Amino acid sequence: MTQTREDFETRLRQIGAERYHDLHPFHDLLHGGNCTPDQVRAWVINRYYYQHSIPMKDAAFMSRVTDPALRRAWRSRIEDHDGTDDNEGGIKRWLRLARAVGLDPDYVASCEGVLPATKFAVDAYVRYVREKTLLEAVSASLTELFAPKIHANRIQGLLKNYAFADDSSLSYFKNRLKEAPKDVAFGLAWVLDHADTREKQDAAAAALTFKTDVLWSQLDALHSAYVTPARIPPGAWVPGDGLALQKAS
Amino acid sequence: MTQTREDFETRLRQIGAERYHDLHPFHDLLHGGNCTPDQVRAWVINRYYYQHSIPMKDAAFMSRVTDPALRRAWRSRIEDHDGTDDNEGGIKRWLRLARAVGLDPDYVASCEGVLPATKFAVDAYVRYVREKTLLEAVSASLTELFAPKIHANRIQGLLKNYAFADDSSLSYFKNRLKEAPKDVAFGLAWVLDHADTREKQDAAAAALTFKTDVLWSQLDALHSAYVTPARIPPGAWVPGDGLALQKAS
Repeated sequence: MTQTREDFETRLRQIGAERYHDLHPFHDLLHGGNCTPDQVRAWVINRYYYQHSIPMKDAAFMSRVTDPALRRAWRSRIEDHDGTDDNEGGIKRWLRLARAVGLDPDYVASCEGVLPATKFAVDAYVRYVREKTLLEAVSASLTELFAPKIHANRIQGLLKNYAFADDSSLSYFKNRLKEAPKDVAFGLAWVLDHADTREKQDAAAAALTFKTDVLWSQLDALHSAYVTPARIPPGAWVPGDGLALQKAS
Repeated sequence: MTQTREDFETRLRQIGAERYHDLHPFHDLLHGGNCTPDQVRAWVINRYYYQHSIPMKDAAFMSRVTDPALRRAWRSRIEDHDGTDDNEGGIKRWLRLARAVGLDPDYVASCEGVLPATKFAVDAYVRYVREKTLLEAVSASLTELFAPKIHANRIQGLLKNYAFADDSSLSYFKNRLKEAPKDVAFGLAWVLDHADTREKQDAAAAALTFKTDVLWSQLDALHSAYVTPARIPPGAWVPGDGLALQKAS
């Protein structure tokens, strides 16, 4: 039976409560100041691959939308990441964080050394949005419902625990605190409006679950590769590689 | 500069020597008899997802081949996995292994409980073959160059160390010992013939490297989820689930 709008929203939020990656132990390490500098670097390198793929994901979505109004509403997501004349954009802000933790931003931007498992998970998300229904694509984006809390915790935890953390290096997260709620308010309303049968509600919930798997897998890969007992896969970033030149001087 | 046929083949074999998943510690545990029954089950459940995807990968390849002779040569791979009137096929043989380790074959065949990271890696392989050049697709299959050794070690190690191991439960691997060399002899000759520029040789080597990442990532995910300290991702198989009915009686 089709769920009421309220019950369906509760169901979506419950997926986050049970499966969002704020529950992953790597975030406890990171936010509690218990990551080594190299573990922070590994996180910055791998998470960059996700950041840099998101505008491609959004373009893949827009490439399938026939309604100009929906495309127009969605476009700001690409602007937020890629930048505009007035806004450097999230990708550049992420590279500022890379520099702050001692990495060469060009190395990070090259995506060399990214864990294969990170690529498989993130690429799976881009392809999901390219291949599934628009409803599933929008539903998968709703992990942003759960992002403001983790970003607030992260800003607080990083500022408290790491010398590299300041307004400049953390500007990515500060901006996301403003951007994500706007995006997700639109996305949530769109999903609640369009998931008007039980079948569509189930598909939307499965899409959001899929996306939590995408995020969780990235932290699992990071934890497995770089947290004791570390097991770095062949070809992935090895501590000491890709450092900013300033470090050598 | 274009490599000689011999140098190029050496280069491909070197990729296996450095990156093939026989180097992963999970295989030491498995072949040395140090996996718990539940760790063996987790391996059987997740590796099934790979097995069951391979014929789809091969069909994706054939769907892009215009040469009937190449399609005809390739078709036996699908027959080897899906079966013929005279041959039950590798997928059924794998489910025999599932039954032998105490799992419900229907549960394993459902692919419920497969680690998301396994799905992301395997799906990446199927899509790779669907999207890249034929040369890259054939090159990616050349990990079978390195498979006979691991299958021989596995048969020996499992027979020696586990009560479930016998001719019936291990028939998958015994058959692969016959099938893989035939496939790979064809594939290797095809790649050596068609990679006739340095650019194509580099692409072929990158494709084989990609495939080693696909295999390695699956074992990393398995190790991370089920080997101490185990960290099972949300929704993945939990020991005790999916056991064969015979176990409850």
